[in-house]
Amino acid sequence: MINVGVVGATGYVGAELMRLLQAHPQVNIALAISKNFAGQQMADVYANFSPLDIVLSEGEVEQIAQTCSAVFLCLPHGQSIKMAPKFIEKGLRVVDLSGDFRYEDTAVYEEWYGMAHTEKQLNAQAVYGMPEYYRQSIAGAKFIANPGCYTTTSILALAPLLKAGLINSSGIVIDAKSGVTGAGRQEKLAYSFCETADNFKAYSVVAHRHTSEIEEQLGSIAGGEIRLLFTPHLLPVKRGILATVYADLQDGVTAESIADAYGKAYAKEPFTHVLQHGKLPELKYVVGSNNCMIGFQVSQRLGKVVVVSCTDNLLKGAAGQAVHNFNIMHGLEEATGLSNIAWYL
Amino acid sequence: MINVGVVGATGYVGAELMRLLQAHPQVNIALAISKNFAGQQMADVYANFSPLDIVLSEGEVEQIAQTCSAVFLCLPHGQSIKMAPKFIEKGLRVVDLSGDFRYEDTAVYEEWYGMAHTEKQLNAQAVYGMPEYYRQSIAGAKFIANPGCYTTTSILALAPLLKAGLINSSGIVIDAKSGVTGAGRQEKLAYSFCETADNFKAYSVVAHRHTSEIEEQLGSIAGGEIRLLFTPHLLPVKRGILATVYADLQDGVTAESIADAYGKAYAKEPFTHVLQHGKLPELKYVVGSNNCMIGFQVSQRLGKVVVVSCTDNLLKGAAGQAVHNFNIMHGLEEATGLSNIAWYL
Amino acid sequence: MINVGVVGATGYVGAELMRLLQAHPQVNIALAISKNFAGQQMADVYANFSPLDIVLSEGEVEQIAQTCSAVFLCLPHGQSIKMAPKFIEKGLRVVDLSGDFRYEDTAVYEEWYGMAHTEKQLNAQAVYGMPEYYRQSIAGAKFIANPGCYTTTSILALAPLLKAGLINSSGIVIDAKSGVTGAGRQEKLAYSFCETADNFKAYSVVAHRHTSEIEEQLGSIAGGEIRLLFTPHLLPVKRGILATVYADLQDGVTAESIADAYGKAYAKEPFTHVLQHGKLPELKYVVGSNNCMIGFQVSQRLGKVVVVSCTDNLLKGAAGQAVHNFNIMHGLEEATGLSNIAWYL
Amino acid sequence: MINVGVVGATGYVGAELMRLLQAHPQVNIALAISKNFAGQQMADVYANFSPLDIVLSEGEVEQIAQTCSAVFLCLPHGQSIKMAPKFIEKGLRVVDLSGDFRYEDTAVYEEWYGMAHTEKQLNAQAVYGMPEYYRQSIAGAKFIANPGCYTTTSILALAPLLKAGLINSSGIVIDAKSGVTGAGRQEKLAYSFCETADNFKAYSVVAHRHTSEIEEQLGSIAGGEIRLLFTPHLLPVKRGILATVYADLQDGVTAESIADAYGKAYAKEPFTHVLQHGKLPELKYVVGSNNCMIGFQVSQRLGKVVVVSCTDNLLKGAAGQAVHNFNIMHGLEEATGLSNIAWYL
Repeated sequence: MINVGVVGATGYVGAELMRLLQAHPQVNIALAISKNFAGQQMADVYANFSPLDIVLSEGEVEQIAQTCSAVFLCLPHGQSIKMAPKFIEKGLRVVDLSGDFRYEDTAVYEEWYGMAHTEKQLNAQAVYGMPEYYRQSIAGAKFIANPGCYTTTSILALAPLLKAGLINSSGIVIDAKSGVTGAGRQEKLAYSFCETADNFKAYSVVAHRHTSEIEEQLGSIAGGEIRLLFTPHLLPVKRGILATVYADLQDGVTAESIADAYGKAYAKEPFTHVLQHGKLPELKYVVGSNNCMIGFQVSQRLGKVVVVSCTDNLLKGAAGQAVHNFNIMHGLEEATGLSNIAWYL
Repeated sequence: MINVGVVGATGYVGAELMRLLQAHPQVNIALAISKNFAGQQMADVYANFSPLDIVLSEGEVEQIAQTCSAVFLCLPHGQSIKMAPKFIEKGLRVVDLSGDFRYEDTAVYEEWYGMAHTEKQLNAQAVYGMPEYYRQSIAGAKFIANPGCYTTTSILALAPLLKAGLINSSGIVIDAKSGVTGAGRQEKLAYSFCETADNFKAYSVVAHRHTSEIEEQLGSIAGGEIRLLFTPHLLPVKRGILATVYADLQDGVTAESIADAYGKAYAKEPFTHVLQHGKLPELKYVVGSNNCMIGFQVSQRLGKVVVVSCTDNLLKGAAGQAVHNFNIMHGLEEATGLSNIAWYL
Repeated sequence: MINVGVVGATGYVGAELMRLLQAHPQVNIALAISKNFAGQQMADVYANFSPLDIVLSEGEVEQIAQTCSAVFLCLPHGQSIKMAPKFIEKGLRVVDLSGDFRYEDTAVYEEWYGMAHTEKQLNAQAVYGMPEYYRQSIAGAKFIANPGCYTTTSILALAPLLKAGLINSSGIVIDAKSGVTGAGRQEKLAYSFCETADNFKAYSVVAHRHTSEIEEQLGSIAGGEIRLLFTPHLLPVKRGILATVYADLQDGVTAESIADAYGKAYAKEPFTHVLQHGKLPELKYVVGSNNCMIGFQVSQRLGKVVVVSCTDNLLKGAAGQAVHNFNIMHGLEEATGLSNIAWYL
Repeated sequence: MINVGVVGATGYVGAELMRLLQAHPQVNIALAISKNFAGQQMADVYANFSPLDIVLSEGEVEQIAQTCSAVFLCLPHGQSIKMAPKFIEKGLRVVDLSGDFRYEDTAVYEEWYGMAHTEKQLNAQAVYGMPEYYRQSIAGAKFIANPGCYTTTSILALAPLLKAGLINSSGIVIDAKSGVTGAGRQEKLAYSFCETADNFKAYSVVAHRHTSEIEEQLGSIAGGEIRLLFTPHLLPVKRGILATVYADLQDGVTAESIADAYGKAYAKEPFTHVLQHGKLPELKYVVGSNNCMIGFQVSQRLGKVVVVSCTDNLLKGAAGQAVHNFNIMHGLEEATGLSNIAWYL
């Protein structure tokens, strides 16, 4: 059994990670840390944990380091950047779920997050935790920067097509729609039931931070500089992201060549699945699982391809991918503690 | 045109009242008052008002009294009790939507609301604004205490049966379910989308304030002392109350006698409609309208009757009933500015 | 009072139209026609109509012609094409809500609807019922082809920008999301609660019929041939369409020039409202009203504009626009029986 | 590995059972049977199964008997009664999820289900599969009648109080609310999204079949004859049942005595959890888990107790309890393949 600590166990991502880890056959949750609820039972904050006896703790670094060999950081950006170095220094394996260490170029982080990056050296050691593209590095890594939810959904859709040169690298539009858990556990009127149910809206148009993470990673994976338009929307559902991606096809590209590119990229992946041309995934195909499901439809009339990519923002987009990375880091069977069958109902 | 003021125009009940009044053919909204948003456009708080130019104001009593001949108070209890006397003194007609003046016996108010009643004299002048039972008094009233939402839904279901002596006055159970707007405009985690959607719960069990209002009014209308069990639940919908009411039938009571009692009570009512025995109303039959719809089913096997009563908590349960009272007070056609056809979709 | 007939009164659009017309101060619903439910009460099909006594009838043309001076056809395409000529011949004013007479070029209809157009002469007399662009013709018309819901939402967003030459006419992408009432009253598993709630999906990708209607009308209004990509999605809400529109800006175009173009087009419109640059409409700003609300955001970084356009698919996208057209045809105040304030809650 | 067959794998209960069994470490799904979809992939009916290769089969009894040692019947009542005897005869262990073999007294079945019971001898061999009360018999059983969803939720709430003589055995009211999956996979307008979302209704009032199952089982477990009023309602959620139960307290009964009775009954149960006095469970505390959570509140004022009991209708109310029974029958660790931590989000 591997003793792990979860820092920030009572945010939505933290709570979802706790749910996965308590059922993970090779993990012992040695410490569940919550600044706001230290001393209380996990069940006082999330009553679904009533059958378990988990006391939330303050989370002194020293104590965590003595008790755990790995730690998950479910903290807002700006906080991870302060905590991560302390755990790395103590020799713990760290999976950071914030945005603080996801960028190769810290200048991009500084521009889009509006704050100085104070850990540039450590940043260089962080491995971007997307197994489909960085499996080898993850296996040997001590420090993982776990990708964002919109980011994962978008990159998995676009990278194979860009890499294979099937689509134009400019003019790409990502129209993404997310469930409300993506905003985290918040007491804001904008996320209240009466303001959100039966509603739908776009937000952070042309300015959402994940734009820059998608652009940088697609550039790294596929080569070249990518600039694209990313528009997030808020769905009146709790979980799930569906991204509808629009790109211009290069001359002569057919549905077959697209299917081939996806097959090459993902045929052996445990959690990324591509449907046949013309079959498109829906939220219920993935919610509750660690899957990304991708479908596409070519418009010969317009020389464009429409790609639809779906994930569960709390799983493949956060806690599930974190566990996947953890498994790879520790040489475990990759799917341990994870499901590739969605709830559907 | 009657010049009216709406005090508390930016709570959910206030905003719904504003929506009704701006379309009311005989009303001019002279002042829309909001302490929190004074100086801003109504559209800044509720964007559906974008097509209108309504500036929210501070609401000095003097100014309101000079501008308006009637005022609606959409304030929390404890605030109305301070404001209402000032407007009454100035000679305005007042419709108060809080719980402050709904009790004949202020001791009951003091017990269930946990605060002293500081306006006992004025309280004696307030008319309980339920047209089905107090139409005459409302017509001549200067001051209306507009009933609560759960209360309206429950009283309209039970009063005719108690009055006619068809059911046992003890042992009554009201199992009520309400949409989330019933909790008002709140930044609380408990009412956030992620905590409320796909969920359902009971709350304030055996202790909800509306219990006492229902008991007192049923006692007044039907005679005798009533003690009953009232259990509210929170539905994952925005609007609507459905109350399932259980009572023991007196010997020999049949579905026909129940139908007769309801017919006598409500056959001529514009907004209270009773369905045939065995047909039960659903939320979508009333939401968006000022209706109360009532259905019932007798169990001969158990000697009980099940009554189902539905309203829109923001309309018949609040703003709609307030306008109905306003119309009666001013001698207008009762249904002016109100609809008896629900949205359904 | 104008005597009207509603043919197809029990579909979702028909029922919504009935709801509007029963409250319209200058309309008498002389006949409500439903092939499936003839002889029954409207309330047997839609219980919200319980307070009214409306018997559904078979709808023989002769009877309708004798009783009504105007008729609304809420029929599936392929059925209107057979019924409309009979009413026109009898001298009735006709508002057809199907797709049968919306195309100037019947060949486009035949291609996208997969059936022959058998009324080409009559088609030439039909006026496209979008008041913002055809008010004059509507005023004198006997026969209105009422636009589609996706179509209305999309055209109102794009026409001013194309007309003013501010955006590139190629490469436009419309990513549209609709509530489930858009699919009509259907007993299909795909539209069952369990398959639709908490879900989200794209459908009819690159092949939805409204694509052709949008393209033809934009071509007519703005000049030139338009080819664009239109992707509809199904939101887990009952009502409302939100279209996110992407277009490439012509050189030098600014937010101000866009605001000017919209102002010129819609400043005096009663139901089409444009928000300030950077403010984007949400479904709840329009649902329940006959409004179209439009917002936009320029990305200088990418030389693109994102336009968000919202309507209630049953109102501005169907029954509401039909009543608007009816009012104009009959010389009534345009907003009679319609609301420009959404429900919000 | 135990080879099992699932008959009726494409109903909602069947599909949920398939989801559990494919992850059950000691089970091999040897045959997934579906009359309607034989020959197709499970993923063609439930796309969440895309990552698995499961071909649905016709399900000849002979073939099943040769391949499987246990079979789950997820069939409508009336069909199980025909199939179950064939599998029992072949020596398979059978878990039947229908209502066909749940009654000790087949006359009660015949009265409430309106059909003759044609397998009275076999009926006598069926063990009622509620581990909390029949664990011993289940361990040795070949044939399990898996309880209904409303039934499980209600019996677990009431049995300890009746058994301990704390409440009056007459006058009990169960006001139950269920998610829509409880109605199964149906193409009915009444269960369509547009008719169900934002709605709430009671149905089958005073006449729902589960009334008789609850009455018979409570009589068996607690002794004496029980007659009670059971009212089901339809919640606009996919999963979950919450039952609010009302009973009259015997003289002198306190919250402590109630807590004691529950403690005695369930303290060691893996899936039935009782909260402290005054804490009440919500749907999100159980949905996604095999738990039943129970809370209660005493009203001294009225001499009544209100009990709130929650389950996931597809799990503890159907497929989860079936797997629990299967585990006990096979001497496996009871919780194998089941979770006692709800999804919450």
